[in-house]
Amino acid sequence: MSYQYEHDGAEIYRQSFAMIRAEADLSGLPADVAQVTVRMIHACGQVDLVRDVAWSPDVVARAREALHAGAPVLCDAQMVAAGVTRRRLPKDNDVICTLNDPRTAGLAREMGTTRTAAAMHLWGDRLDGAVVAIGNAPTALFHLLEMVADGAPRPAAVIGIPVGFIGAVESKDALAASDLDFLVVRGRRGGSAITAAAVNAIASEAE
Amino acid sequence: MSYQYEHDGAEIYRQSFAMIRAEADLSGLPADVAQVTVRMIHACGQVDLVRDVAWSPDVVARAREALHAGAPVLCDAQMVAAGVTRRRLPKDNDVICTLNDPRTAGLAREMGTTRTAAAMHLWGDRLDGAVVAIGNAPTALFHLLEMVADGAPRPAAVIGIPVGFIGAVESKDALAASDLDFLVVRGRRGGSAITAAAVNAIASEAE
Repeated sequence: MSYQYEHDGAEIYRQSFAMIRAEADLSGLPADVAQVTVRMIHACGQVDLVRDVAWSPDVVARAREALHAGAPVLCDAQMVAAGVTRRRLPKDNDVICTLNDPRTAGLAREMGTTRTAAAMHLWGDRLDGAVVAIGNAPTALFHLLEMVADGAPRPAAVIGIPVGFIGAVESKDALAASDLDFLVVRGRRGGSAITAAAVNAIASEAE
Repeated sequence: MSYQYEHDGAEIYRQSFAMIRAEADLSGLPADVAQVTVRMIHACGQVDLVRDVAWSPDVVARAREALHAGAPVLCDAQMVAAGVTRRRLPKDNDVICTLNDPRTAGLAREMGTTRTAAAMHLWGDRLDGAVVAIGNAPTALFHLLEMVADGAPRPAAVIGIPVGFIGAVESKDALAASDLDFLVVRGRRGGSAITAAAVNAIASEAE
């Protein structure tokens, strides 16, 4: 038994990206943000995602420069880290998630916050010039903003696309109101797949 | 500096699930499918996902029985596997993704298909009675249906929620038309986060 469907992976990508470019209204986006948005749309199957995408003017350029300089990708969730395609990274960059570090649970209790927020303190100086990818927890994004405001090293760019019903909208609005270079999807939508797709698009322009 | 937001992880979950139950119309769903759907909505931030959820009557019960009997969770993508919360699994079940197995690329060339589809042949007899979770590639879902129709062992249930523009709609329709126990999200929406959320909800009723 066999079904009729496209079997060639490269051709599936080509057709998918062509369909997205035909259906999505990318006219209001700078070229580099549009290229990233196409891949985010690919990850969620919804061309209307474009209306919720917001960015600081230099975010894609800054994040690309950072990756080409060897900066790590710091992720709030294992799924985000798992979704970053290693062969797209220009310098075999480290992709780091400290959520399952043995120190994280104790630190969370001590700080009175979520494990996700506590895990970010284990990034230490690696935050300096890093590409931060937050695709799961609003608490992580809020806490990153607090850490930077309180003197932590500044990342090169923050891809802040947590998903959900409690704090997601507000945390992304707070990032967009900060002085960090940012890419967000406003509203409740987001998540690890869209976030990893954004990192993958920034890492390489290859479609 | 600090923002006003809920810091308590358990409370964030509680409020999130309460909001989803208040906003989503779950009245047309059996109780067990509704519980799974709440968690899928949580993973994508969209309460209207419910209108696209389709299922066979026994899918949640069958998948639960399988996990309690120690069946593995077979995943098409690393992100799906990364999203399965191990402590929710009743029997410390194996969570398997063979996409990065060293044999997969050669097998794909030999078979003239995608790596994702080829990887499934490495599941072998573990497919028998397994919970299959396909959250990325329509080709994987099509190929699974072909394998089973051609005599491969039958899984206990198929969570088939690939995302995208080429083949996603059609592959999910084909699964729903098959004689396998299935859970799908019709249309283009889907992906690894929603799929892993479905597995996590099936694995444990704890919210």
